[in-house]
Amino acid sequence: MAARLRIGIAGYGNLGRGVAAAVERCPDMELVGIFTRRDPGSIAPPRPDVPVLPWDELLAHREAVDVLILCGGSKADLPEHGPALAAHFTTVDSFDTHAKIPEYYAAVDDAARAGGHTAIVSVGWDPGMFSLNRLLGEALLPDGETYTFWGKGLSQGHSDAVRRVPGVAGGVQYTVPSEEAIEAVRSGRRPELTTRQKHRRECYVVLAEGADAAEVERAIVTMPHYFADYDTTVRFISAEELARDHAAMPHGGFVIRSGSTGAGSAQVVEYRLELGSNPEFTASVLVAYARAAARLHAAGQVGAKTVFDVPPGLLSPKSAEQLRAELL
Amino acid sequence: MAARLRIGIAGYGNLGRGVAAAVERCPDMELVGIFTRRDPGSIAPPRPDVPVLPWDELLAHREAVDVLILCGGSKADLPEHGPALAAHFTTVDSFDTHAKIPEYYAAVDDAARAGGHTAIVSVGWDPGMFSLNRLLGEALLPDGETYTFWGKGLSQGHSDAVRRVPGVAGGVQYTVPSEEAIEAVRSGRRPELTTRQKHRRECYVVLAEGADAAEVERAIVTMPHYFADYDTTVRFISAEELARDHAAMPHGGFVIRSGSTGAGSAQVVEYRLELGSNPEFTASVLVAYARAAARLHAAGQVGAKTVFDVPPGLLSPKSAEQLRAELL
Repeated sequence: MAARLRIGIAGYGNLGRGVAAAVERCPDMELVGIFTRRDPGSIAPPRPDVPVLPWDELLAHREAVDVLILCGGSKADLPEHGPALAAHFTTVDSFDTHAKIPEYYAAVDDAARAGGHTAIVSVGWDPGMFSLNRLLGEALLPDGETYTFWGKGLSQGHSDAVRRVPGVAGGVQYTVPSEEAIEAVRSGRRPELTTRQKHRRECYVVLAEGADAAEVERAIVTMPHYFADYDTTVRFISAEELARDHAAMPHGGFVIRSGSTGAGSAQVVEYRLELGSNPEFTASVLVAYARAAARLHAAGQVGAKTVFDVPPGLLSPKSAEQLRAELL
Repeated sequence: MAARLRIGIAGYGNLGRGVAAAVERCPDMELVGIFTRRDPGSIAPPRPDVPVLPWDELLAHREAVDVLILCGGSKADLPEHGPALAAHFTTVDSFDTHAKIPEYYAAVDDAARAGGHTAIVSVGWDPGMFSLNRLLGEALLPDGETYTFWGKGLSQGHSDAVRRVPGVAGGVQYTVPSEEAIEAVRSGRRPELTTRQKHRRECYVVLAEGADAAEVERAIVTMPHYFADYDTTVRFISAEELARDHAAMPHGGFVIRSGSTGAGSAQVVEYRLELGSNPEFTASVLVAYARAAARLHAAGQVGAKTVFDVPPGLLSPKSAEQLRAELL
């Protein structure tokens, strides 16, 4: 058996823990270190033999890590870490600020090429698996429409927005796709759907002491960009209910391509995720792409890559022969 | 704009006609010729300016065709045509005899390498898009089970089997996936399902004059391999009903990966096709992979390839920059 792929994790929040758990399930990989900007002593490693190391020791471990999986956030962490670390490591990350992907890609590409490394950026499910299905849908059915629905799932950004409202002590927000809208799309009729028709938003809110429920609700449902364009419901719950019923991070959604071929045959392609844990699934995608990153690097393909550039076979631990015999 | 990709079609049945229609929808391609083993004069071209040519003129058109799409059958045609034509052309085909893919791949690979050509084999939806989703499901969720369901759809092989039964003047067979089985899989419980639990088979049969309906029904439902392991229903219809209600070729199905991550979070990934026309969808996939075949060949990647080897971005007419900005 070939040597196992040595994985490092840079940043150890929900996503980093998901990566550690996903590496456990891959016999061809081993986790060689977790790098953190917090006090390493404050972090319990996933298993006793995995060292937790301070961030500033990263470069000293260049030779010990085959692929570094970047588990920081897209807002503040990755724009800095992505290029800086791609200069020294083969990396994979889940940068997900869609509008800034071209800029981020360019910065990582420059750094990776300068260092002779390979960096797969914006991996996960959206961007990631959903992007792949948007591309396939369009390429296979050029005469058609693509629809993306998210949920039912906990949205981190919208939950943060709820929690910033004065009078809110805690809360979460679920994005819920409309079953009617999905059925209309599946029918092949290619409906035009407004923002309000596609998704609704459900908020579960713990009121701060003395706060006015009606005022809090009004502030949420009228919030521009986040809630004003949706049918939004607000339910008030206790802090205990929040902790007990809303700690999981489910998510998912649908990418549907509705197209036609020939003299008008309807063709509908649907990709659907139902995720018990959003960060754990994203982590699992990162880990599979880490395998591909190492192989691309070994083949001399340096620079930044996305899911669009990666031959799918490179994601699997199986050989090309095995894949053809077992899965084709 | 770059020169259009010049497509040739080898074999002009349902699949070949689907390819002609799919090329029409791709502004970056043009259909330069249809090659047939029948009398070319007996075939109406999809548009007046497309020449229909005899099979033995294929090699004389080597320089005029960028990608030749092989539209023969997997049983008798492709085992011979695939290697023979890959020696002289960049090709794409839909060879779909799963058990013989490794052998077919090897023969085409040898021929393509010897000729310096690129050949993408076994493209379509199964093998093809379903294979891709089986691979992705397994690579992303190593702890899990993959389920493939087919239908509701017209099965060519099973329809042929029905028509070979003495006393049958005509007929079709639909494969119907069990809704209960699909729901059980979607639940994340990872059920073990028998052949009988996954699909049932519906036959619509026109009796030959004087044939015994009970005898025909018994011969069908007890037929080994094809029907004995399934709940099979036989309905007798008139030749007029067969022509009127069963001429379309719908198909589709589901690939579902049910897995778990972390401490046991359920993760379910589902890919679903609902196809108004099976051959037209297969043809659309072939045409998108023809674009990729030309690009792989231009990049010097000779030999046989499968969907597992092709970076998805090569399927799209859009540039890598455009794809990152618009679809990631």
